[in-house]
Amino acid sequence: MAMFDLSLDKLREYRPEVAAPADLVDFWRRSIEKARTEDLSASFTAVDNKLAVIDTYDVSYAGFGGAPVKGWLHVPAGTTGPLPTVVQYHGYSGGRGFAHATTLWAQAGYAHFVMDTRGQGYSSGGLSGTPDASPYAGLNHTPGFMTAGITDPETYYYRRVYIDAVRALDAVRTSPLVDPDKIIVTGGSQGGGISIAAAGLAPLAGIDLLGCAPDVPFLCHFQRALEITDKDPYGEIARYLKGFRHDVDAALNTLSYFDGVNLGRLATAPALFSVALMDPICPPSTVFAAYNHYGNAQKDIEVYHYNTHEGGQTYQDVAQLDWFAQIFGAAAQK
Amino acid sequence: MAMFDLSLDKLREYRPEVAAPADLVDFWRRSIEKARTEDLSASFTAVDNKLAVIDTYDVSYAGFGGAPVKGWLHVPAGTTGPLPTVVQYHGYSGGRGFAHATTLWAQAGYAHFVMDTRGQGYSSGGLSGTPDASPYAGLNHTPGFMTAGITDPETYYYRRVYIDAVRALDAVRTSPLVDPDKIIVTGGSQGGGISIAAAGLAPLAGIDLLGCAPDVPFLCHFQRALEITDKDPYGEIARYLKGFRHDVDAALNTLSYFDGVNLGRLATAPALFSVALMDPICPPSTVFAAYNHYGNAQKDIEVYHYNTHEGGQTYQDVAQLDWFAQIFGAAAQK
Amino acid sequence: MAMFDLSLDKLREYRPEVAAPADLVDFWRRSIEKARTEDLSASFTAVDNKLAVIDTYDVSYAGFGGAPVKGWLHVPAGTTGPLPTVVQYHGYSGGRGFAHATTLWAQAGYAHFVMDTRGQGYSSGGLSGTPDASPYAGLNHTPGFMTAGITDPETYYYRRVYIDAVRALDAVRTSPLVDPDKIIVTGGSQGGGISIAAAGLAPLAGIDLLGCAPDVPFLCHFQRALEITDKDPYGEIARYLKGFRHDVDAALNTLSYFDGVNLGRLATAPALFSVALMDPICPPSTVFAAYNHYGNAQKDIEVYHYNTHEGGQTYQDVAQLDWFAQIFGAAAQK
Amino acid sequence: MAMFDLSLDKLREYRPEVAAPADLVDFWRRSIEKARTEDLSASFTAVDNKLAVIDTYDVSYAGFGGAPVKGWLHVPAGTTGPLPTVVQYHGYSGGRGFAHATTLWAQAGYAHFVMDTRGQGYSSGGLSGTPDASPYAGLNHTPGFMTAGITDPETYYYRRVYIDAVRALDAVRTSPLVDPDKIIVTGGSQGGGISIAAAGLAPLAGIDLLGCAPDVPFLCHFQRALEITDKDPYGEIARYLKGFRHDVDAALNTLSYFDGVNLGRLATAPALFSVALMDPICPPSTVFAAYNHYGNAQKDIEVYHYNTHEGGQTYQDVAQLDWFAQIFGAAAQK
Amino acid sequence: MAMFDLSLDKLREYRPEVAAPADLVDFWRRSIEKARTEDLSASFTAVDNKLAVIDTYDVSYAGFGGAPVKGWLHVPAGTTGPLPTVVQYHGYSGGRGFAHATTLWAQAGYAHFVMDTRGQGYSSGGLSGTPDASPYAGLNHTPGFMTAGITDPETYYYRRVYIDAVRALDAVRTSPLVDPDKIIVTGGSQGGGISIAAAGLAPLAGIDLLGCAPDVPFLCHFQRALEITDKDPYGEIARYLKGFRHDVDAALNTLSYFDGVNLGRLATAPALFSVALMDPICPPSTVFAAYNHYGNAQKDIEVYHYNTHEGGQTYQDVAQLDWFAQIFGAAAQK
Amino acid sequence: MAMFDLSLDKLREYRPEVAAPADLVDFWRRSIEKARTEDLSASFTAVDNKLAVIDTYDVSYAGFGGAPVKGWLHVPAGTTGPLPTVVQYHGYSGGRGFAHATTLWAQAGYAHFVMDTRGQGYSSGGLSGTPDASPYAGLNHTPGFMTAGITDPETYYYRRVYIDAVRALDAVRTSPLVDPDKIIVTGGSQGGGISIAAAGLAPLAGIDLLGCAPDVPFLCHFQRALEITDKDPYGEIARYLKGFRHDVDAALNTLSYFDGVNLGRLATAPALFSVALMDPICPPSTVFAAYNHYGNAQKDIEVYHYNTHEGGQTYQDVAQLDWFAQIFGAAAQK
Repeated sequence: MAMFDLSLDKLREYRPEVAAPADLVDFWRRSIEKARTEDLSASFTAVDNKLAVIDTYDVSYAGFGGAPVKGWLHVPAGTTGPLPTVVQYHGYSGGRGFAHATTLWAQAGYAHFVMDTRGQGYSSGGLSGTPDASPYAGLNHTPGFMTAGITDPETYYYRRVYIDAVRALDAVRTSPLVDPDKIIVTGGSQGGGISIAAAGLAPLAGIDLLGCAPDVPFLCHFQRALEITDKDPYGEIARYLKGFRHDVDAALNTLSYFDGVNLGRLATAPALFSVALMDPICPPSTVFAAYNHYGNAQKDIEVYHYNTHEGGQTYQDVAQLDWFAQIFGAAAQK
Repeated sequence: MAMFDLSLDKLREYRPEVAAPADLVDFWRRSIEKARTEDLSASFTAVDNKLAVIDTYDVSYAGFGGAPVKGWLHVPAGTTGPLPTVVQYHGYSGGRGFAHATTLWAQAGYAHFVMDTRGQGYSSGGLSGTPDASPYAGLNHTPGFMTAGITDPETYYYRRVYIDAVRALDAVRTSPLVDPDKIIVTGGSQGGGISIAAAGLAPLAGIDLLGCAPDVPFLCHFQRALEITDKDPYGEIARYLKGFRHDVDAALNTLSYFDGVNLGRLATAPALFSVALMDPICPPSTVFAAYNHYGNAQKDIEVYHYNTHEGGQTYQDVAQLDWFAQIFGAAAQK
Repeated sequence: MAMFDLSLDKLREYRPEVAAPADLVDFWRRSIEKARTEDLSASFTAVDNKLAVIDTYDVSYAGFGGAPVKGWLHVPAGTTGPLPTVVQYHGYSGGRGFAHATTLWAQAGYAHFVMDTRGQGYSSGGLSGTPDASPYAGLNHTPGFMTAGITDPETYYYRRVYIDAVRALDAVRTSPLVDPDKIIVTGGSQGGGISIAAAGLAPLAGIDLLGCAPDVPFLCHFQRALEITDKDPYGEIARYLKGFRHDVDAALNTLSYFDGVNLGRLATAPALFSVALMDPICPPSTVFAAYNHYGNAQKDIEVYHYNTHEGGQTYQDVAQLDWFAQIFGAAAQK
Repeated sequence: MAMFDLSLDKLREYRPEVAAPADLVDFWRRSIEKARTEDLSASFTAVDNKLAVIDTYDVSYAGFGGAPVKGWLHVPAGTTGPLPTVVQYHGYSGGRGFAHATTLWAQAGYAHFVMDTRGQGYSSGGLSGTPDASPYAGLNHTPGFMTAGITDPETYYYRRVYIDAVRALDAVRTSPLVDPDKIIVTGGSQGGGISIAAAGLAPLAGIDLLGCAPDVPFLCHFQRALEITDKDPYGEIARYLKGFRHDVDAALNTLSYFDGVNLGRLATAPALFSVALMDPICPPSTVFAAYNHYGNAQKDIEVYHYNTHEGGQTYQDVAQLDWFAQIFGAAAQK
Repeated sequence: MAMFDLSLDKLREYRPEVAAPADLVDFWRRSIEKARTEDLSASFTAVDNKLAVIDTYDVSYAGFGGAPVKGWLHVPAGTTGPLPTVVQYHGYSGGRGFAHATTLWAQAGYAHFVMDTRGQGYSSGGLSGTPDASPYAGLNHTPGFMTAGITDPETYYYRRVYIDAVRALDAVRTSPLVDPDKIIVTGGSQGGGISIAAAGLAPLAGIDLLGCAPDVPFLCHFQRALEITDKDPYGEIARYLKGFRHDVDAALNTLSYFDGVNLGRLATAPALFSVALMDPICPPSTVFAAYNHYGNAQKDIEVYHYNTHEGGQTYQDVAQLDWFAQIFGAAAQK
Repeated sequence: MAMFDLSLDKLREYRPEVAAPADLVDFWRRSIEKARTEDLSASFTAVDNKLAVIDTYDVSYAGFGGAPVKGWLHVPAGTTGPLPTVVQYHGYSGGRGFAHATTLWAQAGYAHFVMDTRGQGYSSGGLSGTPDASPYAGLNHTPGFMTAGITDPETYYYRRVYIDAVRALDAVRTSPLVDPDKIIVTGGSQGGGISIAAAGLAPLAGIDLLGCAPDVPFLCHFQRALEITDKDPYGEIARYLKGFRHDVDAALNTLSYFDGVNLGRLATAPALFSVALMDPICPPSTVFAAYNHYGNAQKDIEVYHYNTHEGGQTYQDVAQLDWFAQIFGAAAQK
């Protein structure tokens, strides 16, 4: 994949006009409030992760609509907390999988929460297992999750996922292992998009996050994405509109409520983004659109010139290990 | 696509052992009975199809679980019936679309019913619009419809679709335009698989069909299909099992309830199949497995040597026009 | 296929300079006159199309060079005419096929003529069967029809096809089923390109058409097409020039006589175009080049944003059903 | 391309039954006789090939139907002859190109004739320029030359090509530069298939060839080729039969007249074949079918294990340089 | 990728004859002895891995030819040892990367050593950095490492790698953190092939391993691999032989010294293999060939039916976590 | 491949700023001087090339580092010289192969030298056989030759190749068959890039070349190439930087010493370039960058509009045959 998008110089200045719906904040405030009418039912049960240096807890809490969402909470073995905490959302298709599988931030000494993405998890298998328990899950759609309920923000799949992400914050903050004032959200691809959404919705939910670290984030600047790439998962939307040609306006209107450009504008936490200049899945202009519009000026972006959607991988781990240490360290000194 | 499956000589003799679950008939009898506890609510409303020689009715009836399923009923303009009737099921991704779109059997002088496939319809667009209104639609699955609820026959997507297909027969038989004793079911690919299922379940539902005409049918001999092709939609199942490796046995058990080999064995109506020897979507050995096990010895199969999944197309139209005329003609003489 | 061509805003303004040969009109006037020196030999023979509501006639008439061209004429069963008439040309590779196969406009109440494209028909099979009976058919060329005789307008394949298309108008107008003053030409892809050619040549032939409805038309703005896409059939030309590198100028000169941009300029009938913004076969800029230069200001274009070469399909049927009804209705009131 | 065909052990024993038409010899004897009723009109005109050590003559002679076929005759500069001679036929798409382009056998000290393949030449460009001047060239066909006139041996494209190949022998034997009793025919791919045909037809034409050296020959055992590969050019035939489904028997009957298995059986000259075990264009079983049935027991085959359709390339040059030297040397000693 | 290799039933019985060179043991005994004439120069330097619960040491030791090979040694933070130890070799293209990147076995409580593969490491980047310091590295080869020096066992690339792997055992056994009698070797793909080689050579080197756990191992049954797949890295060898056609015998002879089938026969440690039935990179028959010939009857193989080269991933982690715990536990009780 | 790069109008004006390292000339002067400290050891041994009209000599001389580089010297049979001479470098993967394989310029009456490219030759096979005998050949790299030693100009692979090319000039000039004052360098793709390098370095080496004829040259304007194409061999570099993300600056700095834009600026001989406008391997803007910056105003470029990396092939032969004749002719008259 050669470079097919704007040059880096232009990307750094790229601030496209992305229309936000007039009732964006109301829509989300209402969605959060409605979700919080459900009992959170957060539970944390110790499990055998087959590891010696990490303790893991099986987590369940009420997501959008009240149905249970699953996750893991990892901490250094024997820790009683409260710890600075990293909340991680998954990339498209992923899930929490087995208890030993994703422990980086616990290895680094933090509490590390990973959330199942409802309906997905098929690429991780294992103990991924959070259905999209919603009457809207079966609305006519193209294969995948991108278009279920896409003609109305009320019924759209990501309404449920983003609220799950906010409720995950509610849930982990009830754990004695977690310092509720020291939370960073992170994730790659879809997990990056959800991180931005969580960072944008956290203020509406009355939660102060310490940081937001989206890697090669998905779910940003949909309209451009649909024009510049045909790769999945964005491609699922184009395929829907290829058949349901009369739904173009309704779908684009719905997506504007979920666009990382619009939600990131609402964010107040410092941010560390990453982007890959040859990424055909999450094209760099869509990432920079979100980055440049992101709501806190204390932000930085790691640029990987010759990478596609894998982005920085262990290089970005290093960048994040340093940045998280600095963020948590600064918070500890206050 | 060169010929990748068995030779025609071997295909004609191919009768693989496909295990049928002990409670196959019970499962389906129970499913039909349960569906029939719902009010059928069949309605037929004339619509403007923009055509001069065909009249079309917008049909709705209660499918599995009671939620409405949509369809079209086409007849020669001005007909009052009752007419010999062709019930057509769609290929994967298709839907009823616009009212003018699929009228061949009405042009031939019959009543022609086309049924929406729940949740699908995205390749047809138009007025396709039957959601999969089920609490199981959002169970963890790979993109597509093939794996939703696949670990249990009770929750599997095609349980709902096959029952919709039986209830479609219940519904059209209430119309004065339809001669309830003169019905042929047909369809290509997924529609062929549903046709076989409908022909197999009709006896359990107390319905005598005059014929079953599946073209390049899908949903037959799943286990072999998963081994011999990686093309979608069968490929969706392989992708599910690639992640959820521990679900192999459960999934294969579920599929045995829905396999055209097992359901076709129950069928009593004469049949006209078609098969394409270079078809990587519905490999010929999976089609011949269903054909050779099909329950009525009055059967024939059109073989297209150099075709892939498109099969016979207009050549098969001709074969069916002749066969349907013969079947309906013979029935008229009784 | 993401959007790879100009943005819709730019497409609407796109009026490239496409040089027309000085003798364009002479060349075609001479070609028509020469063809009309042949006896038309139009014949219409009723055939059994296996349909109840449509009557079909096997048509033959003398095309370019006098050899017979085949077609079907469909009308509502029992009609005696004269009827408003739709003349349809086929997409590349297509042919008239079987008599039951393509009847939409007859279903809508019109006379519907479909013309074989000489030498082609291999994707339709059936009764497609009009050879390219020309001494130039065997001139050195790349596989396909696009380059046969391409170094000289006199010998180029599409000279014969375009004249066949004009002679088809001559032929159908001799039928008592056809109202010779109420003809619309239409077709998709190659059929769209031939429609534009027929609309441009009709005035030179003294024929007043009521409308021209090209869908995702091919054969327009060749030079840009050769630069912006490598997909067939345009790709056949690029492959020819890849080998016969010294024929570039001669080939481009020849193509200028057949370019829908130049021929559409000569058209006088109202038009309804369609275009798909992700179409790599007939890129949108080549379609808009023809549309924006088209000779009658009473024109419109349906734009399909997320479609590739399939274009509008049944959505465009609806648009055409409405537009044809309006055109024929207005003509009936005169 | 991994090995997809039979193992080498099985290939060496592979002698499939390939039915030869009863009138095979009559058909070809009649075709040769008819061609010889035309005046041969062989001409040899010296041209500037821009080379110092090779002289080249522009050759023209009457091919099938009497129309001119072009070629080059190369000899070592200053030669007056008569020389042992190599007649080379081209691979599909090729042509004689420029006069300097293909001179290997003249460099080796022989007369070297290269024949244009009618209608083709587009991959060589240059001075390739022999049209397929036949009324059958425009019969309905798929893109390419493989299916033009395929429903009847009389009209099939390769009837004209094979006769051109025999008449090329007639033509070169009239040149004082050529020793008419010392001719080897050779070529790769299509050129290999034509070589076999020439070797099979030469006895019917009363010509004694010294050798036949087909490399990775095409045009052998069509029926198996159509089943085992979908690559072009064999794929052109499958595509024709994909549309014209009712022409399967007629096409296979026609091909039996042109099959290298059947024509090679008639050959009497010694042979050196080559084959590549990973060749998807000319699968090894089709080559071994022709080799094992070839009519002279004095034969050998070079086997390239890890090659695809490129075969032996310069390795095969070496094998042929040695074999030709031996053949011509032995003949000189008689 | 559908199943393209033998059925599971046949795989379980698949014991192909794979010729071992007469001097196989001598060759390797000599190679080990020669390597051990070099000073081992093993060093272990603590580094900052940015993790709280794992300590990491930068390891260097003399590999084949005496040049330094790099690796990491991870242990639970604060451990002083000696610990049961897992030695991991990398897949093709991989390297040790950053110090935080691969720590699973240290998280499980063991010492965990990862070895750089000389010359490779480009897919991991980071601190991968062990050149193939050999005069033979530049011998003519196809892109990649598979064919460097392939015409002679003395010069072949994997001679150096396999000896590096043995010397890695020598090196880690010098560390006080490592219990020299409790070592399991493991790795995926190339790392699996090296594991088998290490297990086969360890007895020659006087080292008793407790276990060998190769996942979807590469470097097994080369001859079949070259026939059944064209995917890299095996494909590199086929590409070499495609050009250097005269080197087939020499190359296959060389490979027989490095074949996991032959080296695994020499192994004495218990083994846990894994295999994926749709793996086109390391086809299942090549894996089962090594497994069925493996030298210790105390062996098992995890079979993943619907997976390609990713194999079991976290599922195999679980299987290995359990098996390693059992092996190390049993050893602790002795 | 459609046209994906700049338009021809813009290409003709395209003179990008490509930074040359300050010590570019010093680096190369030093490299040449160092190489010339080695004994040239040029040898010319007559071999049997199996051809009658060409004599061939097996050439060996000391390349970079003193290790032998192989080549062929072809001349018209019986020539004693001295002759005008064409020195040809190979495309990536190629080598001298067999002695009969590449003789065009000897056929044209000149001495024709072809040089092996160290380490490569795998696509030619035969007698290609010059290892890259360097301690740097095994430095960590991606498969292929493009990245071996790329972090330092001293260790980079092409330093050795370019010096081999200069030493080839030294070597051939010692032969009595060669007129040392009448040498043209040429080659396609990599051979074109090496030709430009040779033409740029010749003045530093005190050699006056008569001409430089690079076809579709590679190794020019690396930075743009890495952005505009992902095809190999440029793609090898991008893959290296995809893993070794921290090496971007070092690699680009190294490449600036080897860039045909910078080296061509130093050239003083007249030049004939060629370029193909649809070439994805050596994109036209990278070729024009070198052409427009080339150091002698007496230059021309053949433009092939519809070609990909094959470029002009025999058409370019003709252009070069004419241009070489003119150059050598003019030199002969001095």
